[in-house]
Amino acid sequence: MALTVVGSLAYDAVETPFGKRDRMLGGAATHFALAASFFDTVHVVGPVGDDFADEDLTILATRGTNVDDVERVAGGKTFFWAGKYSANLNERETLDTQLNVFETFAPKLSQASKDADVLFLANIVPDLQADVRQQCAAAKFVAMDSMNLWIDIARESLEKVIGMVDCLILNDEEIEQLTGAPNLVQAAAKVLEMGPTVVVAKQGKYGAALFTADDHFWVPAYPLETVVDPTGAGDTFAGGFVGTVAAALQGGEQLTEGLLRNAMAYGTALASFNVEEFGTERVARLTAEEIPERVANLRRITSFEDRPVSLRG
Amino acid sequence: MALTVVGSLAYDAVETPFGKRDRMLGGAATHFALAASFFDTVHVVGPVGDDFADEDLTILATRGTNVDDVERVAGGKTFFWAGKYSANLNERETLDTQLNVFETFAPKLSQASKDADVLFLANIVPDLQADVRQQCAAAKFVAMDSMNLWIDIARESLEKVIGMVDCLILNDEEIEQLTGAPNLVQAAAKVLEMGPTVVVAKQGKYGAALFTADDHFWVPAYPLETVVDPTGAGDTFAGGFVGTVAAALQGGEQLTEGLLRNAMAYGTALASFNVEEFGTERVARLTAEEIPERVANLRRITSFEDRPVSLRG
Repeated sequence: MALTVVGSLAYDAVETPFGKRDRMLGGAATHFALAASFFDTVHVVGPVGDDFADEDLTILATRGTNVDDVERVAGGKTFFWAGKYSANLNERETLDTQLNVFETFAPKLSQASKDADVLFLANIVPDLQADVRQQCAAAKFVAMDSMNLWIDIARESLEKVIGMVDCLILNDEEIEQLTGAPNLVQAAAKVLEMGPTVVVAKQGKYGAALFTADDHFWVPAYPLETVVDPTGAGDTFAGGFVGTVAAALQGGEQLTEGLLRNAMAYGTALASFNVEEFGTERVARLTAEEIPERVANLRRITSFEDRPVSLRG
Repeated sequence: MALTVVGSLAYDAVETPFGKRDRMLGGAATHFALAASFFDTVHVVGPVGDDFADEDLTILATRGTNVDDVERVAGGKTFFWAGKYSANLNERETLDTQLNVFETFAPKLSQASKDADVLFLANIVPDLQADVRQQCAAAKFVAMDSMNLWIDIARESLEKVIGMVDCLILNDEEIEQLTGAPNLVQAAAKVLEMGPTVVVAKQGKYGAALFTADDHFWVPAYPLETVVDPTGAGDTFAGGFVGTVAAALQGGEQLTEGLLRNAMAYGTALASFNVEEFGTERVARLTAEEIPERVANLRRITSFEDRPVSLRG
């Protein structure tokens, strides 16, 4: 019983109003795995170069994450991304992207990774996502991320793989772009017609929304006094969300609305730790004991009583 | 026992991707009053010109709203605003602003308006807000709106009037601009140091947040399949929010966190009706019976159970 993630392992150079890092561990699969490993045994599938440090592989292996399928490409260099955030962290500018070993990445899954019950396809070329999804035929719950680039240049492949998964996790504006719908409610309904039974819209600092055939659910981002670096927040959220689902399915639970809402809360809590420091720094030393308090706080700050109000006719 | 609002009565020309109106009833006080009148007797204070139609005065007087202090300026023209919204309604461009009678507006309050228990200072010149606040010495709860323009050109006056009110209702980015804080949590805390005991951050299509000395509360916008025109949504929200507070205070309730959260939900529900059609069209024919269902739905789509999750150490 395990959770497989396929995606990028990277080094990031990041500048925010609160500091900078020239080279820090990053990548979607990294952030996802660090969060998901609180819930299940994670198998990471992704390429790195000769330059990938042993201590970063050790961080990736936190809480027993299996790194056997981290492919070290001889003579290659690890994916590198550099970006700079605006004053209020709402926008970021990409300064440099070096695909390096990612350019020729063809996911090779060990039998253990293929046997996973739950699969997360982080943001990579849609055709590779489809390939991995087919390799993991036994997976009971498959979620995926993507990005506007693939909507622009590989829409057909993207729509095909969306039709092969249970859950699409995407930024709200990308969901609108994907479907051409004028608002998120209409857009999510269109995605539900494409195949997935679960749609999660990430809304950045505003939180996230969940759409199923049954209902909607909206949760704010966890309010923080200190936000230092949003890099990886979406993948950390996905790790908490998919991880919660994985743990519950393996405990024999059904994929209910209640479970999914709980997963949204855990994803939100995990993401809140991620943004408090640069890159993986905070989540890498996070302990399981710290998480439930944030989930409980999230519940407290979103609850209200439906008190009777006498309305004038 | 009554609720006084001081602010603009206007004609708006609005174009959205879903249609346009060349001249429709608008203005902050108008939208506020239509919403607040579900909760309390509203007194509207604001100027109009010779061109203000009797049928629009009749709309304003819905549910017994008192329009004795709507000042008709002989030879004057009503405030006019023209704007166009972007495809996803996230941004709007002001095409024309004609202050007209608003340029020389000096609020004249009848004794009945001055005696109000609750006062809402809609977005007007801060010095006029301060003047009205002083005229309504008996008010037990005073809330105000403002805008980035006054932060830019009348900061001192704005800070002074903020220090004279109980509640500031403002867009999230304006609260950040006002305080210079890098995020909303820090920004709201700074406003609480300026005088108000309640801060409400409007987040547009993402909802709203409430800050007091005790806690935070976050509520999403009510999810809609059809959003036609966001004009007046913020003032309609304020009308529902302040109206709920007014009704409760007059019922002998204290200004508790629970009451304020309930007010946030009613404000959100009212605003959702406003955006479904142009201008005041939907709220003008809204009935009291339609409102509680949206409040109940809002509660349903934000609730989650804190189910125990077994976390790996």
